[in-house]
Amino acid sequence: MNQTIKIALIQQSCSADRNENQAKSILKIKEASKNGAKLVVLQELHSSLYFCQSEDTKKFDLGETIPGPSTELFGKVAKEMGVVLVLSLFEKRAKGLYHNTAAVIENDGSLAGIYRKMHIPDDPGFYEKFYFTPGDIGFKPVQTSLGKLGVLVCWDQWYPEAARIMALKGAELLIYPTAIGWDPKDSMDEKKRQLEAWITIQRSHAIANGIPLLAVNRVGLESDDSGSEILFWGNSFAAGAQGEFLAQAAHQEETVLYADLNLERTEEVRRIWPFLRDRRIDFYQDVANRYLER
Amino acid sequence: MNQTIKIALIQQSCSADRNENQAKSILKIKEASKNGAKLVVLQELHSSLYFCQSEDTKKFDLGETIPGPSTELFGKVAKEMGVVLVLSLFEKRAKGLYHNTAAVIENDGSLAGIYRKMHIPDDPGFYEKFYFTPGDIGFKPVQTSLGKLGVLVCWDQWYPEAARIMALKGAELLIYPTAIGWDPKDSMDEKKRQLEAWITIQRSHAIANGIPLLAVNRVGLESDDSGSEILFWGNSFAAGAQGEFLAQAAHQEETVLYADLNLERTEEVRRIWPFLRDRRIDFYQDVANRYLER
Repeated sequence: MNQTIKIALIQQSCSADRNENQAKSILKIKEASKNGAKLVVLQELHSSLYFCQSEDTKKFDLGETIPGPSTELFGKVAKEMGVVLVLSLFEKRAKGLYHNTAAVIENDGSLAGIYRKMHIPDDPGFYEKFYFTPGDIGFKPVQTSLGKLGVLVCWDQWYPEAARIMALKGAELLIYPTAIGWDPKDSMDEKKRQLEAWITIQRSHAIANGIPLLAVNRVGLESDDSGSEILFWGNSFAAGAQGEFLAQAAHQEETVLYADLNLERTEEVRRIWPFLRDRRIDFYQDVANRYLER
Repeated sequence: MNQTIKIALIQQSCSADRNENQAKSILKIKEASKNGAKLVVLQELHSSLYFCQSEDTKKFDLGETIPGPSTELFGKVAKEMGVVLVLSLFEKRAKGLYHNTAAVIENDGSLAGIYRKMHIPDDPGFYEKFYFTPGDIGFKPVQTSLGKLGVLVCWDQWYPEAARIMALKGAELLIYPTAIGWDPKDSMDEKKRQLEAWITIQRSHAIANGIPLLAVNRVGLESDDSGSEILFWGNSFAAGAQGEFLAQAAHQEETVLYADLNLERTEEVRRIWPFLRDRRIDFYQDVANRYLER
């Protein structure tokens, strides 16, 4: 494994035109590769608008199989540019059975592995429980030529358990493709609290586990026929093994964000902060309960 | 339960004189109470210097029983002022069996409950495994007239599992008495990363669980006969249920830090961020393992 890996996060806006979105992603992947990136991560559901603002059976037409058209298209790009790619797809697994799935493409164009989003949100404007069956393959890192990637998706980022299990399974890096934004009607104070919380909890996963973390979010205002609107807040970032910022994007601009990751630093950080040594696994079984007071 | 509770955090420096340290704490508790505080939290091992900078059997003389002299002394203050107090004591449980224990005193002076530190660090300058037997009563909140207090201690703050189990057992508030500081020989960059990580991971526990959090740290440079030195970094803070700062102390000054907590806000925050609803308890049993890759 290389000591230092240059990574790139593609923070982009999307339209209703799938081909246009994909062409834009590919252009940016190529740009990132030319700038030295060996790992490129795309945002959640990067080939479409964030279609979960309302519940509409017709939107299931956006689903695709894995392997399928996207892994083929982006597989060619990965192979041509020699980069490992993390995609985020609307997976059609069977008739009427869909997942929100990350696909990791090796730098030879092959499919290294997938992760099916485990935690599914459902809130006004984020009706994901209608579209996405919860993942059933658990929290398993994907082995690649660059290391073991702990790929999780969006809502998973609020759950320390997900990051922890990935780390215990040897993840050397946490990666979160995301689609999160503000309700334009919220107050400035509430918007600030939400953005800070989103950044803070992800940095905490890097800290708790002593591994770097990448979060990639979309930008742009997307309006739905239902009247719902989300202003995606960007702020894609890379954090090091102590949770420190390595790079951070702004909230409204399309960006190719770069960072240099040294995966060997985990050993050094875990020597001074040996959190894994002192875990009280004799008392942690309680974590696997819904609630314990009543 | 009151809608809003005024709390106070006593961030102080300590000397080798136990009486002086306790007199200072009591003065500040009384000041806090006069200013309206109903809950006052003291820092970790507030009656002494942080004695774990070296391993010395004579230092076990600092231990005391619970109930014992400190719960009696501070119990009188709690009753006189009508405040709930969180103490942090070096507990002598039996001959040669010691714990790092938080004691919660009810506002009538009685002992509401204790928490024995579960995660015990051991690093140069922090030789706690020599002094403190790991806690055996698990992560259980203490019921008080002000609500259920999820009291944890220092090194516990790096473990999301501890905060989560407290929340699942109904904790309405997380409280961390702490003694953490810089090695004066570290670089400014390293110091900044450490302080930020300490703040970030604690704010993340508030966020993940939708409950407020109090962290109380000591200040001052303490030198040990062994040549070890720690500059305790203060920065005591209160965070709300979205992890937002409610109050934050500076890094070198003794401070009585105040904040108003509205414990009812947890319901509101958990409605917009229903993290507890979507936990994948069917996959979390893996958390109770040391490591899962090999």
